[in-house]
Amino acid sequence: MTGRSFVSPATRDRVRGLALPVALALGRLGLTPNALTILGFAGTVGAAVAAAAQQWTLAGILLLVFGIFDLFDGALARATGKASKFGAFLDSTLDRTGENLVLAGVAVGFAQAGLTVGVLLAVLATAFASVVTYARAKAEVVGLHGEVGIAPRSERLVVLAAGLVLAGIPGGFLGFGQAWLTVALGAIAVASAVTVIQRIIHVKRQLEQGENQ
Amino acid sequence: MTGRSFVSPATRDRVRGLALPVALALGRLGLTPNALTILGFAGTVGAAVAAAAQQWTLAGILLLVFGIFDLFDGALARATGKASKFGAFLDSTLDRTGENLVLAGVAVGFAQAGLTVGVLLAVLATAFASVVTYARAKAEVVGLHGEVGIAPRSERLVVLAAGLVLAGIPGGFLGFGQAWLTVALGAIAVASAVTVIQRIIHVKRQLEQGENQ
Repeated sequence: MTGRSFVSPATRDRVRGLALPVALALGRLGLTPNALTILGFAGTVGAAVAAAAQQWTLAGILLLVFGIFDLFDGALARATGKASKFGAFLDSTLDRTGENLVLAGVAVGFAQAGLTVGVLLAVLATAFASVVTYARAKAEVVGLHGEVGIAPRSERLVVLAAGLVLAGIPGGFLGFGQAWLTVALGAIAVASAVTVIQRIIHVKRQLEQGENQ
Repeated sequence: MTGRSFVSPATRDRVRGLALPVALALGRLGLTPNALTILGFAGTVGAAVAAAAQQWTLAGILLLVFGIFDLFDGALARATGKASKFGAFLDSTLDRTGENLVLAGVAVGFAQAGLTVGVLLAVLATAFASVVTYARAKAEVVGLHGEVGIAPRSERLVVLAAGLVLAGIPGGFLGFGQAWLTVALGAIAVASAVTVIQRIIHVKRQLEQGENQ
């Protein structure tokens, strides 16, 4: 099993198509792709601060909005011929930092609430999710593929945003309340750990196949 | 400023020279380099569990011992001609996971102690430190160098281990107690954030120089 993403390539293309007109409009306001990358990062930091203040639903909405916003920099760059290696590098690095910071905010929010199990799940999700992306980059350094696995970034963000939004619904949605968020974090932690193992095995297989050719 | 490591290359070579006889002895016990990598990771997980239980000094000692142990896999692999791309990939990936897990353990330990500022600093240190290593790998994917900066992994581990050991001394070393650990985490978080910025600038400069040639 190689572990496929549950967002199909067709859906990705459709979402990208929808992003283009918005991206071009932002470009006409004088914003460069790199400026959009930095704005998106600032919005994600806002989501992290909201999470640290236990404003779960606000944090979830900001995470979704700026997760979608993150499509615009690449769309504008491609449409205006401004795609650059530096832009791609900056985008990847700030995406990674942003996801870490939102999970950090959730950990701090749970610490404030005195819910140690929430802190535990948030830091485990951070620990494994960040290695998912690292393992792929490290595989690519030696010319291999590392993009397999059940928990790529877009899926992790959707699960985290859903957990945040549901956790913050006043009165406790379906009686679960903050448990929605702990379940989402647990799912991200486990799926990310599995993905790290999938990527390690995938790299090993590619190297073995290389030797047998 | 490129930001130099405070561990000189000569010191690194000396430490590697000392590691070789121990590595060869472990090899004679029948252990392969990859087995040493996995043993070292297991020991680091032990440090993480100790930290989560607020056994700070034990966690610091385990972190130091298995940080040194981490030199043996590479030394044995080189000395026996078993150095492999997969071994290097496994070592990098588990090193990254191990550091994240120890910081996660510290965050959980501070959450148990009800010290939210400690949780905050631990998760910020994780968020930025993991991007330090990611940024380097991502730079290398596009054929650039990314190893600059004031907070490479060995330095982060020494500071964290020192903070852990001092924080756990009974009676509170020099009256600071757990503040040693919060200071160490704050230093790691700030130095790692600076290093991420240094690496982004370094990548930008290399790409600009490439265009001007």
